[in-house]
Amino acid sequence: MDIRKAVYMMKEKAQQMASSDPELRNGALRAVKKCLLQNKAKIFEANEEDLRAAAENQVPVQVQKRLTFDEKKLQDVTAGIDQLILLPDPVGKIQMKRELDADLVLTRITVPIGVIGVIFEARPDALVQISCLCIKSGNCAVLKGGKETAATNRVLFDLIHNAVIAAGLPAECLYQAENHTQIEELLSCDDCVDLLIPRGSNKFVRYIMDHTKIPVMGHADGVCHIYVDADADFDTALRVIADAKTQYPVACNAVETVLVDRKIAGKFLPLFNKEMKDCGVRIYGTEETTAVTGCERMAEPEDFHKEYGDLEITCALVDGVKGAAAHINRYGSHHTDAIITENDETAAFFFHMVDSAGVYRNCSTRFADGYRYGFGAEVGISTSKLHARGPVGLEGLVTYKYLLEGSGQTVGDYASGRKQFRHRDLPFRSK
Amino acid sequence: MDIRKAVYMMKEKAQQMASSDPELRNGALRAVKKCLLQNKAKIFEANEEDLRAAAENQVPVQVQKRLTFDEKKLQDVTAGIDQLILLPDPVGKIQMKRELDADLVLTRITVPIGVIGVIFEARPDALVQISCLCIKSGNCAVLKGGKETAATNRVLFDLIHNAVIAAGLPAECLYQAENHTQIEELLSCDDCVDLLIPRGSNKFVRYIMDHTKIPVMGHADGVCHIYVDADADFDTALRVIADAKTQYPVACNAVETVLVDRKIAGKFLPLFNKEMKDCGVRIYGTEETTAVTGCERMAEPEDFHKEYGDLEITCALVDGVKGAAAHINRYGSHHTDAIITENDETAAFFFHMVDSAGVYRNCSTRFADGYRYGFGAEVGISTSKLHARGPVGLEGLVTYKYLLEGSGQTVGDYASGRKQFRHRDLPFRSK
Repeated sequence: MDIRKAVYMMKEKAQQMASSDPELRNGALRAVKKCLLQNKAKIFEANEEDLRAAAENQVPVQVQKRLTFDEKKLQDVTAGIDQLILLPDPVGKIQMKRELDADLVLTRITVPIGVIGVIFEARPDALVQISCLCIKSGNCAVLKGGKETAATNRVLFDLIHNAVIAAGLPAECLYQAENHTQIEELLSCDDCVDLLIPRGSNKFVRYIMDHTKIPVMGHADGVCHIYVDADADFDTALRVIADAKTQYPVACNAVETVLVDRKIAGKFLPLFNKEMKDCGVRIYGTEETTAVTGCERMAEPEDFHKEYGDLEITCALVDGVKGAAAHINRYGSHHTDAIITENDETAAFFFHMVDSAGVYRNCSTRFADGYRYGFGAEVGISTSKLHARGPVGLEGLVTYKYLLEGSGQTVGDYASGRKQFRHRDLPFRSK
Repeated sequence: MDIRKAVYMMKEKAQQMASSDPELRNGALRAVKKCLLQNKAKIFEANEEDLRAAAENQVPVQVQKRLTFDEKKLQDVTAGIDQLILLPDPVGKIQMKRELDADLVLTRITVPIGVIGVIFEARPDALVQISCLCIKSGNCAVLKGGKETAATNRVLFDLIHNAVIAAGLPAECLYQAENHTQIEELLSCDDCVDLLIPRGSNKFVRYIMDHTKIPVMGHADGVCHIYVDADADFDTALRVIADAKTQYPVACNAVETVLVDRKIAGKFLPLFNKEMKDCGVRIYGTEETTAVTGCERMAEPEDFHKEYGDLEITCALVDGVKGAAAHINRYGSHHTDAIITENDETAAFFFHMVDSAGVYRNCSTRFADGYRYGFGAEVGISTSKLHARGPVGLEGLVTYKYLLEGSGQTVGDYASGRKQFRHRDLPFRSK
């Protein structure tokens, strides 16, 4: 089917999906889980086909790993579905209730965003995770997965779609796009699609952001910093930097630049150098840092903007916390940045002055994650400042509407002064 | 000064502005009020100059009215400043506090958005209102007013700017752009400007939305509907429609289309026709409605998408509330739409199925307004679904950040299972 037509039909059904009973949506999630478990042989078989093709096409081994959908991945996604079912319904929550005047009551209530387009590279488990988040939050979703796992995606989507329909949700609530050309078409559906969520490389996300009028939630870059203050505990600094760089270097919340207070350069840099060497991390330094301790190569100006995604790190000196905040706001990507200090005042200054979704003290930047924040599941991490910032869970998939119930009131009466507003907040129980 | 340079310097100061004491910001607002009152002769003189030029350039009388800044407007804006001072500080509110593990505490706190670009046509009072909203919420603002009130804007801006600086806020927190060419430059500052708020005609807002990568808050269209259900009280229907159409026809929340349940067409349309005639409103009808009651002219297909901003209204028949919701979701602008019915079930269906920022029952669409909702002041009305929807007050000018305070925790310990997350919500007092 033409994707425009599919999205248009989805839009027509979006309000029905939005008003569906939460128990129906949870039932659909239970059905999805059951269906995936019952048909796992079929899923694994399709995935093996994808992996064979990837090997033939000499896809890098690191990427091949991400394409894999095996027993372990199945366990992860079904555990995620269980968690999602237990989470409270994000839809229909009352956010305010105000009597504007007698018999004129304003209520603000959460509603699903509507139609969400999800475009992702690789990782077939993302297809399961994101479609389940959309179902839980009453949204309709158009899904376009990477061509490297086309066979796996097709099987997964069909299983999920059939389970959801059998559970009683409208067939139009999910649609899978399979051709690459459909991405361009989807990007032009700004009259029907309310939000796009791209998941993939920086280049890919940037491309999506630059080629659509639809609002995009996500992050193109993750240039995270750790600033080691003059009042830092050095053991803490070394342990946290090692974790933030090496625990999973490909992640967007891995650290890319270490800033060191100029006052402690002579003491800290040799220890840092040794720690990085022990972890197999290559340091790119400035003239100053190199003079103290040496480095793999000199940092180029563009290194300060770079997300390595590998065992590489930039190192530079700054003048105290003020210099650190200025550097981070200028070169960072407003994702997650940390200070290592024992000084409460310095930490408070850093918390105020660093303009990032996550600002940390004495812990690893790798904590920036929906699961670790206790959100149960995440759609992704947003570096935008509007709507949702940082790790985005179900809350980021809903918006609100204002309901006003009256008894024939007209604005003319208030404009003329015949009537006055009361503006009295009423008690309410958010379900 | 080059606007890019000005915005860049503003961005550098944005965190200082964001961390400013709320009492300092309120003090600045008090100073602004005092300064405007003390220099009112100067303001009125500049405004007379603008009005003379407007009359010479044969600007329509309706528009000339909007350009006026007189004693009445001064009273309105200073009353607005008084209200703003009394409102609680929107910055630094704790939204969640969660112990992820021992000594690892996550806090979500509201922060200003940062640098806001405000581009408006005419209405010099908007300059005062919006700059004061930005000061109250700790944001920096670039302001570009319409050329028709260039003299008034210059005087108002200088008074506000000087008052704010004297009160102790950074000089870079406000900047006025005066040349039309600077709009293009401002639209290209997506690395420094966090949000654009355009205020003006539909065409103008649409132009801004289509020519920038910066997120835009506002509404291009206001095509509001009133649906008269079979179970409507006819007196209520006629009174509400007359108010929604005629009380201020230029407003975005005025009604443009009336939908009538086909079942009551024969009874209701003649009454509606008479009421509209009495109010001087021209009806554009369909073949069906015209057969019952006549009309000014037949409605063209594009009339259903049209915001008249004048004493004109489209009228069509639909099949019950289901047909009404489908029509509104298809042709409306997701702004504000009302049902007139005495039937609770029908109203509930309408509330669920209409996908608009405001969904009303038995009252005028003209209530969609920050002041009437009790928000004290408004930046504008948003028809976007993300971030802020409907009338936007101070709440729409803030975002949040996550602060994480630890004691050396690394993600490796949790990934390996050596440590477990607690995810225990802590009590907090939002200031």
